[in-house]
Amino acid sequence: MTAEVITGLRSDARDNRARILAVARAAFAAEGLDVPIREIARRADVGVATVYRHFQTKESLLTEAFSEQLAFCSEVVAKGLAADDPWRGFCLVIEKLMEMHALDRGFARAFTSRLPKAVDFTAERDRALRLLLELVRRAKEAGSLRQDFVLEDISLALMANEGIRAESPRMRVAASRRFAALMIQSFRADPVPAPLPPPVRLPLQLDQV
Amino acid sequence: MTAEVITGLRSDARDNRARILAVARAAFAAEGLDVPIREIARRADVGVATVYRHFQTKESLLTEAFSEQLAFCSEVVAKGLAADDPWRGFCLVIEKLMEMHALDRGFARAFTSRLPKAVDFTAERDRALRLLLELVRRAKEAGSLRQDFVLEDISLALMANEGIRAESPRMRVAASRRFAALMIQSFRADPVPAPLPPPVRLPLQLDQV
Repeated sequence: MTAEVITGLRSDARDNRARILAVARAAFAAEGLDVPIREIARRADVGVATVYRHFQTKESLLTEAFSEQLAFCSEVVAKGLAADDPWRGFCLVIEKLMEMHALDRGFARAFTSRLPKAVDFTAERDRALRLLLELVRRAKEAGSLRQDFVLEDISLALMANEGIRAESPRMRVAASRRFAALMIQSFRADPVPAPLPPPVRLPLQLDQV
Repeated sequence: MTAEVITGLRSDARDNRARILAVARAAFAAEGLDVPIREIARRADVGVATVYRHFQTKESLLTEAFSEQLAFCSEVVAKGLAADDPWRGFCLVIEKLMEMHALDRGFARAFTSRLPKAVDFTAERDRALRLLLELVRRAKEAGSLRQDFVLEDISLALMANEGIRAESPRMRVAASRRFAALMIQSFRADPVPAPLPPPVRLPLQLDQV
């Protein structure tokens, strides 16, 4: 929905729309994409019909709810491309994307899923991925990124990042940071062991050793 | 339940017990640990009370259902420890655990979770982890594994492995294999880029590039 259309809404409709988006963002971030529309309606204290009046499909709600995060991703990739050293730019992108995905599981899941019905979301994501592909090309050309690296490896790394669980969002980000450093290490063409961020206590551990 | 107790059951009770275990194994593997007891009872075509007669708690059902997989894990780690080269043994353990976890999501989730009530499961897992810790010590001593590697990094790698989704179990295993090779690369003290298994098509990709 464009700004013009939004401005044209009556103020209570605008309030509803903003509240539905805020509720959807929080619900998707904490619980993933499976939260049903009727549950979002309940938490936003509106009827299901009201949700559908503002967002024709769950995909359009999802696209609107994640538009800021997606814009942030594009921005991160653009910054990476602007870096003097393409390898440094590549590392920056991996680190930032993983940190952001660790904070918002709904967005992480949306970003790494095939969502054929979420046309706008997918188009914007593809734009970001195309820029990333250009950065990958440059980092390979510079001899820093391994030649057999493919875009699917970023997909693999981002999905893997989603699997990381920890006791709190803060610890998940810390664990994710160590994980990103490990992945970057594995992507280097000429790997010299780089120092890792500190390890994090995770659900699977030996307390007694 | 010991073999003696099982033998003492009437044959229809034995059939029920075996069927409940088979259903639970399949359900946990495909859908994770959240499948409720009443759903397992329904699929096994028995009453909820019958499930509880054989397994006092969900944790004891889980422990019995995964006992083979857990034994396999211990065996893999024992094999790794028996290898002449501790680094080779360590790589073997990472590869096998990840492959196995990719095939059985329920077990993967159980293995990387804190399950304080599943006492037998946890005790057996801790035995395997202690052996793994000894293998880690040897691989570091041999100078092959980075000194700042910690057991939590295996936990991190296994949880990350759980996040990998693909169109079929076969593709998930293939993706997991490439991921394991990348993780191993990142764990090396003196990393020389090793060839990776082929990349796999994943949900997030650019079809049009």
